[in-house]
Amino acid sequence: MLYSVRMRAAQGSSHEQGGKHISGAERLVSGELLTSVAAAMLRRALSHSRGTADFINLTVETVPAEAVREVTCLPIITVNTPDMIAGRESAQAMLIRAGVAPVAAAAGISALVGLPVSLRGAMVVNAQTGLRLDTQAERGVRVSRMDIADEQEYLHWLNRLGYGNNQIHLREAVVLAAKVMSAPGMVAELCWSDDPEYTAGYVATPAAYTRFTQLKPYGSPIGGRIFFIQENTDLKQLVDYLQYQPILVKVPAAGGAADAVSE
Amino acid sequence: MLYSVRMRAAQGSSHEQGGKHISGAERLVSGELLTSVAAAMLRRALSHSRGTADFINLTVETVPAEAVREVTCLPIITVNTPDMIAGRESAQAMLIRAGVAPVAAAAGISALVGLPVSLRGAMVVNAQTGLRLDTQAERGVRVSRMDIADEQEYLHWLNRLGYGNNQIHLREAVVLAAKVMSAPGMVAELCWSDDPEYTAGYVATPAAYTRFTQLKPYGSPIGGRIFFIQENTDLKQLVDYLQYQPILVKVPAAGGAADAVSE
Repeated sequence: MLYSVRMRAAQGSSHEQGGKHISGAERLVSGELLTSVAAAMLRRALSHSRGTADFINLTVETVPAEAVREVTCLPIITVNTPDMIAGRESAQAMLIRAGVAPVAAAAGISALVGLPVSLRGAMVVNAQTGLRLDTQAERGVRVSRMDIADEQEYLHWLNRLGYGNNQIHLREAVVLAAKVMSAPGMVAELCWSDDPEYTAGYVATPAAYTRFTQLKPYGSPIGGRIFFIQENTDLKQLVDYLQYQPILVKVPAAGGAADAVSE
Repeated sequence: MLYSVRMRAAQGSSHEQGGKHISGAERLVSGELLTSVAAAMLRRALSHSRGTADFINLTVETVPAEAVREVTCLPIITVNTPDMIAGRESAQAMLIRAGVAPVAAAAGISALVGLPVSLRGAMVVNAQTGLRLDTQAERGVRVSRMDIADEQEYLHWLNRLGYGNNQIHLREAVVLAAKVMSAPGMVAELCWSDDPEYTAGYVATPAAYTRFTQLKPYGSPIGGRIFFIQENTDLKQLVDYLQYQPILVKVPAAGGAADAVSE
């Protein structure tokens, strides 16, 4: 038996009552780890760079081990971008290479840039037209019930690739992107963080997780993610998969590393 | 700053989706205690005599220290009842002595006896007519945002009165009853537990917390509580007080003990 542990924290009041989103987290852990993981989530919500939470909701649900599917991490590539403009241009080009129509890639970036507040989840967007398909407004579509299969192995792998212990955003996003890219009809994901101190973001495709060191201005508390999906995708099935299919993510068998690229 | 920590756990699915209520807990603690209290609540939900939870919801909210009101514990009296019938008769007599009309006391006991499933919260009942006033159905009215002011002092006090460490139901109920009896318009409370292994219950009045050792059959997983209120009470104000007014409960200054009574 595993436990899905989901946390969301807000400031001012609860999310439902219009509070400001502070942080969220998703884990899928054994019973032994449950209480320590929950405690760590609470500590994190109370000491986040976006502010201190006044409201934290933690949900724990059992997940039968036989329901879990394993997927493999994407290779990680870092693109050192000189500034945000260059970062966004590179990200846009990467989306187009992955099969997102140029108009949709541009619309996606504009949608993230134009967000008035952070999305807790993701916008789901037609990869051909760029039109938003989900109806979740600021809530977005959450990706739940996923975790790394073996944390020590994962940290070792990340260290070997040069992503040290402080890279908590990267660590979590690589797991999320692995689940997202395993979803039916998924073309690519674009994301940057709502952490004001974290300017990097990424494009995930079925081939790689490509991190761009600058995708948003330092100090901006507004972030979000977009899933670009194939035109004929069954949206309900996709959203169910993202929310409910338990996924454990494995480290690639033979390295999976990729050299850093500068541009 | 204090933190209100509220837990509810269900089996099968969430409460909202019709899952069976397993356990609930309410605490009001300092930041230092927050994570250990949350972890203890999760452990408890996963090892309850009513069953193992499949769904746990934990809510943490900040409470400004200046909003907290202090109230004093009621003296505790234990009535050793030879069986459930005698226990219920004694409880009914005590309710009537506290000002509950005989018809309302009888109706209240019948309502608890007739519950098809456990109430998570309390029924609010007119102390004259016995008619239920709240509209919360199986959910009932929850009492939140209360705790003991000084846990060591409290445990010491309980030990001195002969209520040892294993009396977790009593420990929590005495705190809840102290808040309930401080509410505007409250006449008396009647409660027995949904823990199948725990047959005791109590009547709280503004004068005392009277525990009856047998109020329900051993093995029954159905429990609940009733608040008997004065006829002219403002229900919304009362429910707001029970849910939102932060209360810390003090041990009585001069003992507050009362001898056990057998009948």
